[in-house]
Order: sequence, then structure tokens, then C-alpha cells
Amino acid sequence: MEFPKSLQKLIAEFKKLPGVGEKSARRYAFHVLDSGEAGMRGMEEAIRAVATNVRRCEKCGALSEESLCSICSDEGRDHKVVCVVENFKDVFRIEDTKQFRGVYHVLGGLVLPLDGIGPEALRIGELVERVKVGGVDEVLLATGSSVEADATCLYIAEVLKPFGVRITRLAAGLPVGGELEFTDATTLGRALVGRTVFSSREERESG
Amino acid sequence: MEFPKSLQKLIAEFKKLPGVGEKSARRYAFHVLDSGEAGMRGMEEAIRAVATNVRRCEKCGALSEESLCSICSDEGRDHKVVCVVENFKDVFRIEDTKQFRGVYHVLGGLVLPLDGIGPEALRIGELVERVKVGGVDEVLLATGSSVEADATCLYIAEVLKPFGVRITRLAAGLPVGGELEFTDATTLGRALVGRTVFSSREERESG
Repeated sequence: MEFPKSLQKLIAEFKKLPGVGEKSARRYAFHVLDSGEAGMRGMEEAIRAVATNVRRCEKCGALSEESLCSICSDEGRDHKVVCVVENFKDVFRIEDTKQFRGVYHVLGGLVLPLDGIGPEALRIGELVERVKVGGVDEVLLATGSSVEADATCLYIAEVLKPFGVRITRLAAGLPVGGELEFTDATTLGRALVGRTVFSSREERESG
Repeated sequence: MEFPKSLQKLIAEFKKLPGVGEKSARRYAFHVLDSGEAGMRGMEEAIRAVATNVRRCEKCGALSEESLCSICSDEGRDHKVVCVVENFKDVFRIEDTKQFRGVYHVLGGLVLPLDGIGPEALRIGELVERVKVGGVDEVLLATGSSVEADATCLYIAEVLKPFGVRITRLAAGLPVGGELEFTDATTLGRALVGRTVFSSREERESG
């Protein structure tokens, strides 16, 4: 017996979710079916609400239901420090640390020349505009440390140079709780080059 | 920064899925967001289609998009053998074995007196009706082997007794590939009681 066609389609939709295979997709679809009319309507409406209400902040590109996100519209944040991230998820990762009180700028990707993604496809122009308008002292490049991220950061540093703004990058080094034995040579090398003065108060410093 | 409200709701919906925690729910919600307008509409429509189109077969209670499911309307199946299962998912499990050519009857649960679920809450009346109408030679009780399943089977066997139909049950014994060392005493006991004549053709027999 085959699954009814519409159920097959729902299973296919669930399989598109990251890390979901055939078995989990079936379980999810069965669960949705089991949850009855109200349960199905709940999930359907939740997806529709996200599609309708969630947009990008006009200033920083982070998720928002208003034209400005809660961070850009927060006067208590330090608008002089702009943290540049690859995508909107990274904003939540950095916010989780509670170590950053500035504002954000979401690029929407990395420069990938081989995939035909040039700087103009990203929100780099908007970043330059923000710096040009003034009021920005520091641009913190908070990308990962892949080759593509490095190239993107280099490009951004280049175009921001004329404005004399301070450009910083996330520290590279040992992960907290990490052991030397399991740290690759490149990371260890960067931790050595970037070594800091030992201080017992170090952990309490904020960025 | 908090998640936008509608995103929070979608995360809550995903968390209702079996085995999905906060982290996976977030990943799913982000993925849905990332998939853009078309992607969101795809999942939304898939859920709506399931809610609208998938119903229960009028005869057996399995999933169907027609009034009769593909098994009940298949004249090539043996309509004399009715396999009684707890829920619609079990139909797919048994079909996967490719060892059963009869038809099904979905109970919609088990008799759970302590939860206030009596036989009248299940599709037992419909089963009796099918047997009463005639044309059924065998009723195979294909439930699990919990106390509740045993009680439900006993009840069904009792109400079907007047019709003189053959009532069978799934064999209990070692799982294929199972080892004696890891088999509990009750299962091993039932495997002993139900021992069968050794035959090299055994695996090829069909139910």
C-alpha cells in the first residue's frame, strides 16, 4: 500500500528539513496527521504567519516583524560598533553570548566568485553607506574563518579603508574547554600569535 | 534579541513533533525561513492538502484519499482474511513485510479502561459488522503484546465467537537476528511454547 499522495508530498516537504531522513519525515507526517484538524491548522498557520510577518530589518538585515529590528531600534545599544555577520542566524548566536552591546549588519552570505556571488550580491554596499553616513567607530568582522570568509573580510576592509573606521575581527584560538592534544596546528598557531596577557579577570571582560 | 513572535510560534509547532527539541526546532524554523516564499508555501500547502484530502477508509479505517482505500478496493487481495491493527501506521508496517495479502481493519486504539477508553470507543462494532455480513474466514489479531493489547484481543475474540470465524494472532518469539543472550525470559518462553518444525523452506512461507 502506498501512502496517499498528499501524505507523500508532506513527507517530501519534511525531508527537506536539515538532518531529516525518510524515517523521521514519516514520523513527523504521521504525527501531523494524528494531531487532527486543529493540530494541522496550527502548524499551517504558523508557517503562513512567518511567511507574512517576518521580514528583514531595513537597516541591519536581521530578522524583524517591524521595519527596524529590536536591536536597531534600541537606543540602549552602542550604535557606534557594528558587528558584521554572514547571516541572520549568526545574530542570535552572538546575542546568546551576552558579550556584545553594539548593533549588527547581516551580509546575507559570503563572496564566492566560483559560484558567481560577487560583493554586489551581498549587503556590503549598505554597510559602506552606514559607515559613510557617520557615527560608526568600529566594524567588527564576525565571520567564521574559512577561506571564503577571509576573502570577504579582506574585501570589506578594503572598501571601508577610506573612511578610517576601526576594523576588528573575532579572536582566533583555543575553544573554551578545548585541549591542546585535539587542537589543529593552524588554530594553535593563531592562538600563539594572538596570545594575550594572563589575567584572572580575563573571563569577565566584555567585547 | 528575541526571536520574532511568529518565528517563536513556528518553533513551538516544530517542537510538538516527536523527538524534536528546541535546537532542532530552531534549525527547522530557520530552514523554512531560508527557503523563501516558495519553500514556505510548499510546506504550508502540503499540510493543508493532507488536512483536506487524507481521510479514513470507510471500510477498514486505513488512510485514504478516496472513500475506500487502495487495499479495500483491490480485488486481487484476499478479502476473506482481515488483519486487525491498532492504528493506521501499523498497516504500513505490515505492508512493508510483503507477507500479507489480506485486508485490514484499523481499531483506532486499544481498550484502556483506566483511561476511560472502552470497546465502544474503538472500531470493534464495525469489525463485528464486517464479520456478520459474511465472507470473512479469518481474523488475524496483529496488535503488539502489551497487557492492554492482550485484553483488547481477548475482548474481540469474545465478541467474534458467535460467528465461528477463525481467530489468529501474530507469532511471538525471537526477533530475526536476535540472540538468546539478549532475549528476555518471557519472549524466550513463548518462543519455546510456540516452537515450529524445522524446515529450510520456512523463511519463504507467506502468511
